[in-house]
Amino acid sequence: MILSKRILPIFLLRLLALGATVSATVLMVTSHDSALVFNIKFEAKYTNSPTFKYFILINAIASGYTLILLFLSCKSSFGHLILALDLIVTLLLESSISACIAIGQVGKKGNSHAGWLPICGQVPKFCDHVTGAMIAGFAAALAYFLILVYSLHNLISLFTLNT
Amino acid sequence: MILSKRILPIFLLRLLALGATVSATVLMVTSHDSALVFNIKFEAKYTNSPTFKYFILINAIASGYTLILLFLSCKSSFGHLILALDLIVTLLLESSISACIAIGQVGKKGNSHAGWLPICGQVPKFCDHVTGAMIAGFAAALAYFLILVYSLHNLISLFTLNT
Repeated sequence: MILSKRILPIFLLRLLALGATVSATVLMVTSHDSALVFNIKFEAKYTNSPTFKYFILINAIASGYTLILLFLSCKSSFGHLILALDLIVTLLLESSISACIAIGQVGKKGNSHAGWLPICGQVPKFCDHVTGAMIAGFAAALAYFLILVYSLHNLISLFTLNT
Repeated sequence: MILSKRILPIFLLRLLALGATVSATVLMVTSHDSALVFNIKFEAKYTNSPTFKYFILINAIASGYTLILLFLSCKSSFGHLILALDLIVTLLLESSISACIAIGQVGKKGNSHAGWLPICGQVPKFCDHVTGAMIAGFAAALAYFLILVYSLHNLISLFTLNT
């Protein structure tokens, strides 16, 4: 009973993380728009930026990992390994969303000092999709952060119970 | 004796992290170069990019936090709080370095699809400084990751000893 009370929030957070990582991957992969700038066709898609490709890769890995963990969650024999993998997945998700926010900010506002013009005015549909993917990616990173904090809390309280 | 054996690696990793975060902050703050492009003076410094300002803020916070912890490290009464703060500092350092790598990559290679030209050819001194800051920032994030893994390992082995 105590065990299921401990596992249920993590199960729900993993479900949320799965939804968020799958949404982030799909939204980023399907982000596409084109515009005519000075009569030259300008096509915006995720393959244009290594940051967006990295974002997709990490979110796809996190989706697969979360899906496997949802089936494994009843078995706690791999507890420590899962904690270590959760930490790595949290760090990877967080690094992918941070990199995306940095590039997204340049895409939206540009950088006048470097002469980089904003592109969202020309390809708004692409930017909306990327923004959606980033919100989903942020939700996934947050869910994994909460999974990690909750697992640590469980570990420490079990430790306190035993001492 | 067992306690000091457990604390010593963390103390050394914190010393490394302190050196790395201070170096990262100083290198980024002092990064500066200027060039004439089409007779217009182009000045490159960290204030030009919100990502670089964020990098400095996070590394400065991490420096202060690490300095305090180096004096506190003998007292283990705040162990759980320190573990939680270590996790947050690791995530912040990692997010700042990921964002910097994304922007640095555009600065070095540009992005032809978005029409963003590379700037490192014009301001090589600025780019070298930023690269140095990023290597230091990466070392700091790695040191904190190892602190976190080692602390978790200690916690789990103490837990296993007690059960």
